Amino acid sequence: MPKIEENQLFTVIIEWEVNPKYQQDLINGLTNQIETYFKDYDGFISSSFHASEDGKRVINYAQWLSEEAWSNSFQASGRDEVQTTNDEIINRCGAKTLKLNSYRVARVIENI
Amino acid sequence: MPKIEENQLFTVIIEWEVNPKYQQDLINGLTNQIETYFKDYDGFISSSFHASEDGKRVINYAQWLSEEAWSNSFQASGRDEVQTTNDEIINRCGAKTLKLNSYRVARVIENI
Repeated sequence: MPKIEENQLFTVIIEWEVNPKYQQDLINGLTNQIETYFKDYDGFISSSFHASEDGKRVINYAQWLSEEAWSNSFQASGRDEVQTTNDEIINRCGAKTLKLNSYRVARVIENI
Repeated sequence: MPKIEENQLFTVIIEWEVNPKYQQDLINGLTNQIETYFKDYDGFISSSFHASEDGKRVINYAQWLSEEAWSNSFQASGRDEVQTTNDEIINRCGAKTLKLNSYRVARVIENI
């Protein structure tokens, strides 16, 4: 199960705006893509999809071993095919990609 | 260490825009607030601060046991004081709160 650790992983957060009717479809479609193309990719750690309570947004919290592993995955064969299918899923669900940013986990506070 | 699990926790994602010079100050200030006021609060699980690579954004990925636990914490005594101090930290760092949204973890994919 994904664990958040300080300065250990390269984190990518992607946000979509979606028609609430298709929020679950968007999650299913993108999840299938990750299971098919990225799950066993070297350096891929985890990808967690979050559904907003109002149905209008989806956030993917993705963890990679390093920035290099993440960028290499984009250069891998099949990238164009993956992107085309992603675009189709996003269009079909009336969704829009709002943000794609990368982060370093700076600080973790826990109730322990 | 924070773990992401499907449908188990109530997740709150807060995003700030910040002057890169003060990104670390913002993280330190808000982290201190959480350690002082929320760390031992009933239902608080974890709070992880993420620093964007370009220095311009900070994201807090916070996990609570339930939505109820999260809203109760806002009604707890000291709330006004906490909010005032938060505002002071945010202003001092030239930061702006962009988003505060709550999410359900819908799907987790892992490389296992």
